Amino acid sequence: MGNSFGKLFKITTFGESHGSGIGVVIDGCPAGLDIDEGFIQEQLDRRKPGQSKITTQRKEPDGFQILSGVFEGKSTGTPLALMIWNQDAKSKDYSHIAEKYRPSHADFTYQEKYGNRDYRGGGRSSARETAARVAAGAIAMSLLKKHGISIQAYVSQVGSIHLQEAYQALDLASAENNIVRCPHEETAQQMIQLIDSTRKSGDSIGGVVSCVIQRAPVGLGEPVFDKLHAQLGYAMLGINAVKGFEYGSGFAGVQMKGSQHNDLFAKDGDAVVTKTNYSGGIQGGISNGADIYFNVAFKPVATIMLDQDSVDQHGENTVVKGKGRHDPCVVPRAVPIVEAMAALVMVDALLLNKSVKL
Amino acid sequence: MGNSFGKLFKITTFGESHGSGIGVVIDGCPAGLDIDEGFIQEQLDRRKPGQSKITTQRKEPDGFQILSGVFEGKSTGTPLALMIWNQDAKSKDYSHIAEKYRPSHADFTYQEKYGNRDYRGGGRSSARETAARVAAGAIAMSLLKKHGISIQAYVSQVGSIHLQEAYQALDLASAENNIVRCPHEETAQQMIQLIDSTRKSGDSIGGVVSCVIQRAPVGLGEPVFDKLHAQLGYAMLGINAVKGFEYGSGFAGVQMKGSQHNDLFAKDGDAVVTKTNYSGGIQGGISNGADIYFNVAFKPVATIMLDQDSVDQHGENTVVKGKGRHDPCVVPRAVPIVEAMAALVMVDALLLNKSVKL
Amino acid sequence: MGNSFGKLFKITTFGESHGSGIGVVIDGCPAGLDIDEGFIQEQLDRRKPGQSKITTQRKEPDGFQILSGVFEGKSTGTPLALMIWNQDAKSKDYSHIAEKYRPSHADFTYQEKYGNRDYRGGGRSSARETAARVAAGAIAMSLLKKHGISIQAYVSQVGSIHLQEAYQALDLASAENNIVRCPHEETAQQMIQLIDSTRKSGDSIGGVVSCVIQRAPVGLGEPVFDKLHAQLGYAMLGINAVKGFEYGSGFAGVQMKGSQHNDLFAKDGDAVVTKTNYSGGIQGGISNGADIYFNVAFKPVATIMLDQDSVDQHGENTVVKGKGRHDPCVVPRAVPIVEAMAALVMVDALLLNKSVKL
Amino acid sequence: MGNSFGKLFKITTFGESHGSGIGVVIDGCPAGLDIDEGFIQEQLDRRKPGQSKITTQRKEPDGFQILSGVFEGKSTGTPLALMIWNQDAKSKDYSHIAEKYRPSHADFTYQEKYGNRDYRGGGRSSARETAARVAAGAIAMSLLKKHGISIQAYVSQVGSIHLQEAYQALDLASAENNIVRCPHEETAQQMIQLIDSTRKSGDSIGGVVSCVIQRAPVGLGEPVFDKLHAQLGYAMLGINAVKGFEYGSGFAGVQMKGSQHNDLFAKDGDAVVTKTNYSGGIQGGISNGADIYFNVAFKPVATIMLDQDSVDQHGENTVVKGKGRHDPCVVPRAVPIVEAMAALVMVDALLLNKSVKL
Repeated sequence: MGNSFGKLFKITTFGESHGSGIGVVIDGCPAGLDIDEGFIQEQLDRRKPGQSKITTQRKEPDGFQILSGVFEGKSTGTPLALMIWNQDAKSKDYSHIAEKYRPSHADFTYQEKYGNRDYRGGGRSSARETAARVAAGAIAMSLLKKHGISIQAYVSQVGSIHLQEAYQALDLASAENNIVRCPHEETAQQMIQLIDSTRKSGDSIGGVVSCVIQRAPVGLGEPVFDKLHAQLGYAMLGINAVKGFEYGSGFAGVQMKGSQHNDLFAKDGDAVVTKTNYSGGIQGGISNGADIYFNVAFKPVATIMLDQDSVDQHGENTVVKGKGRHDPCVVPRAVPIVEAMAALVMVDALLLNKSVKL
Repeated sequence: MGNSFGKLFKITTFGESHGSGIGVVIDGCPAGLDIDEGFIQEQLDRRKPGQSKITTQRKEPDGFQILSGVFEGKSTGTPLALMIWNQDAKSKDYSHIAEKYRPSHADFTYQEKYGNRDYRGGGRSSARETAARVAAGAIAMSLLKKHGISIQAYVSQVGSIHLQEAYQALDLASAENNIVRCPHEETAQQMIQLIDSTRKSGDSIGGVVSCVIQRAPVGLGEPVFDKLHAQLGYAMLGINAVKGFEYGSGFAGVQMKGSQHNDLFAKDGDAVVTKTNYSGGIQGGISNGADIYFNVAFKPVATIMLDQDSVDQHGENTVVKGKGRHDPCVVPRAVPIVEAMAALVMVDALLLNKSVKL
Repeated sequence: MGNSFGKLFKITTFGESHGSGIGVVIDGCPAGLDIDEGFIQEQLDRRKPGQSKITTQRKEPDGFQILSGVFEGKSTGTPLALMIWNQDAKSKDYSHIAEKYRPSHADFTYQEKYGNRDYRGGGRSSARETAARVAAGAIAMSLLKKHGISIQAYVSQVGSIHLQEAYQALDLASAENNIVRCPHEETAQQMIQLIDSTRKSGDSIGGVVSCVIQRAPVGLGEPVFDKLHAQLGYAMLGINAVKGFEYGSGFAGVQMKGSQHNDLFAKDGDAVVTKTNYSGGIQGGISNGADIYFNVAFKPVATIMLDQDSVDQHGENTVVKGKGRHDPCVVPRAVPIVEAMAALVMVDALLLNKSVKL
Repeated sequence: MGNSFGKLFKITTFGESHGSGIGVVIDGCPAGLDIDEGFIQEQLDRRKPGQSKITTQRKEPDGFQILSGVFEGKSTGTPLALMIWNQDAKSKDYSHIAEKYRPSHADFTYQEKYGNRDYRGGGRSSARETAARVAAGAIAMSLLKKHGISIQAYVSQVGSIHLQEAYQALDLASAENNIVRCPHEETAQQMIQLIDSTRKSGDSIGGVVSCVIQRAPVGLGEPVFDKLHAQLGYAMLGINAVKGFEYGSGFAGVQMKGSQHNDLFAKDGDAVVTKTNYSGGIQGGISNGADIYFNVAFKPVATIMLDQDSVDQHGENTVVKGKGRHDPCVVPRAVPIVEAMAALVMVDALLLNKSVKL
């Protein structure tokens, strides 16, 4: 269980890192949407490994095939299935880790939960699964664009290097101008250096992806359990390596007084707006028309090129050898994943909101 | 929509702060569970207003009535409904805020989403709704106890006053010894002073509730979207006033190297354990047998005793007057709510895990 | 599990025949709907026992209380809960059947499934639970009326007495003119006589309720598993004592040739219509604009006033004594239940259909 | 929406008759199940077209590919995806029906609901979609076998030719001995003749598939809405061309008296059994250990080889020409589909029942 996401725009993903491929079925995509294959591929390319010197050097083209649900270039309203075939999946030798539990990986827990596991590259627990989400998210994004809603994520922290500027002071689109996807060139270069030196030492480092959703209409989100930010948090925490989520004022807001934190309402022409936005665009779990913004914390990835003590399936002490290639910091590649999951949440909220009034 | 939580132990809450009362239906509570009414009442009493000088002075006894699903003291396997009747709900006069949008409340968003709203004390958006969750959570807790699982939350931060000690160094049960529910007496007294002075100034302040789940079996949680921590985060973010969630190393883990952060496996008798627990007891979305721990950030509550500029339903400028009584800091009363939501997540995970193997 | 129905207009029922009462929570009722308490009561009165000489002589007034979700006479978009309190529930003595398995009742299966059961009058398995559905259905019906959709059920068979006329030849509203709810007076009188003589002999008899849904728009129903008729069938088969469901040509259609059965399309002004309607208003699982009609078969109810051999919980042979009062034929009272369940299906389909196009 | 079935053993199907192929994702298949590809292929072969002279003469080999969820021959507990690729799908010319509404097909309703449709052979509304269900059902069947549960369907009626014998008097396995799948050779030959003559006249004819589930444990099914027979009915009514469902005494039971229809309990060694089984193995929505049996009515299929008047997408009168090949009676090929859907219901009920007791 647990492989579906969304209520009306519902996706189900399947596939393993070293099986046939990774796929997704979207049930509930409205009919008549132009399916832009080029745009889907662009998003997959932003996530794929081997993009730059600071990501893993594995090369996977991540082309995709539409299996169903599209006719004459448009969604038909029936299930839309996409497949990203794995390349050369079978050639590798995994015998060195087949019975070992890699530290802070899912090897042990999958083995215990299911009684078996696909040990080839993590199987289902591999972040490769997120390719399917990015593909589905691209379609969700196309739908949001028609409603004028934009979603832009970027890297705001790597290790202890923080982006100091608030998002309002930045040109978020410029995040794509550098390989770390930070929209502040000087900070970006520092991040890149840190990741590069971490890579050379065989180690990994964590980071934060920030995301801004703009021009969402007032009214999205379903109290009380399905508050818009609860849905966003749930979506983000389901991404591999995520350790935390905060929106609006977040953890820092804890230290504020109510008289500072409250967003006073004011008029802007006919619209009701807020003078500040500590609420992060969401009040009572419902979007209020202001920018929705949030942060997602990613741990340093577990795969490192250093030897580590561990235990194997038989309960024997062992050493997990560092070898091959690795991703020293996931956040640059996590940017499109965060956007995709945010898009899935927003589309679902948009569709659910259609039935709220007579 | 959005008023149900859980897949197999599924709760649906209903009711408003100033209607007849607040209720909950539990569908999926296993049959044969002893329903301990005293224990449910204890949990409700921990959440109820008017407990101490640092919570709101409103007095609500929060007694409850079992409407269905219990026979001869035991759950029958059929829907278990509980009702917490409101007292004296009708006597108040709300005309002064009926058409005003209180800053950082849900007045504006509910009005826009639904086209109407119950303006009496927040209606459905009131934190009073969480009483229903606490009642349901108490039943979930009884079930977890039978499996040896314990859940203990406590206040770890108020404003800028941090509890410095890690949970392992504390007697968590001692959190109940003071009115702020912080298991470190000296820090607790500082917190109480801060809340009290904030109250006197008519203002409010935020805080953090931390929670530890112990003795959960290995194997709980459903990858990929329903990872155990994603379910916990979703549950916590659905509580009123919550702005952030982190588990294990959380946002601080971002600054670590993989070689520091990875939890090395080791043997402890026949069991496989980890030497450290930055993972927070969850790997690949599945519990690994170590302690599960997480933090929940609460903003300063929006209701303050100070006048604030705002706008009314007709788009006219207005002032929301500070009057009556308020809760200067929600975290002491949020402790049982966090525990209740955690219990609901854990019971659901436990039941779902029954069907994972042949 | 299994106590919720619907996806967007989702109801959850709770309560037992001899507990506090029967209740229902509706999550997803659109905001702004006028809640007509008189209309809800009318529907409950059509279902209540003791209406006439051919139904059980138990007297239950079946008044209801709105617990939440209505403000100033309108639905607020938040959960709408209703409670029908039981009267004098505690006075009876059930010791004579507490440990006996009544033939063709749910005593044995509940005991085996749950390990215990509320033996007072059937507990949760009692048809009294359907009162909650009728109340929720009345609200659904109000919403359908706003869309011009009407639902009319009636009794078309009791024992071997068939109504010969097709629904088109009848004034369906006249079903309410007699106590058996058959819209053909002569047939109705025969049915009443049969039920009355069956009652006098302490026995029971089965029957068929037919239902016609008119003016549903084209496009309702979700292929492939949630075809409109599959939803209707699922809804009807969930009513106590139902043994079969057929729509359109039904079981009789089996004997037809395709060339007879196919409904030829034709033009009616601008509209596309069919010349015949063996499809029963549904093609490919989607409403086509024609009348939707179906039949629901009810077995003779299990409670009879005759002694029957049986077994008790200890596996001992016993006799279940016939005593008290009984409902010799459920179909007259099942008419509003069939209508209510049909209304719930149609409202849900209507809301789901809102998100199907861009 | 509507393309998923089941709660814990949840399948989602996708694909169209003339797209890339038909697929299914199973989320919730327990880990460790031997996946017998030969058995899956056998079931697909029982459903495939071109099996005999009385089914459509189209030849589709219906081989399948496992895309995910199986490792070293066993299910891993992660999503199990299967694909049945279409052959030669692109070669045909559909221009003659692209804009015409075929009578009693889903052309008109899909066009109206979705605003477009895949007109090639019915697209998603084609019965070819059921191949995916048969594949998933084969896996469900493997799991049921481990619990000793068997499912056997057979043809009991074609047009007006009824099988007179009750299932207890027949060797149900012998249904596979003839091409119509009727376990009574003489009746089978009559059915075959009727279908063959119907085929020659270019027409089609309806039929009934009966099904018996044996050795199901007591306790399956979830009252009140998810009664076991309501789930079975919902599953069957979701199969293309189905017009009715009845279980146990069904529509005929309507004419019985309660004193005849009630199944008296008796002892059989330590077990509690019933002397008769008009209940069809289900009481109060829960299996009672007796055989579960039901009938499914199929209409004459809409595709016939005769010219029919109709209307096109532009509202113009037209004629749908009879040409090509057709299936004169679907029931022989529907037998494995009925079994597959029954298996999916039973597996889901079995898994859900695991969480009902402490």
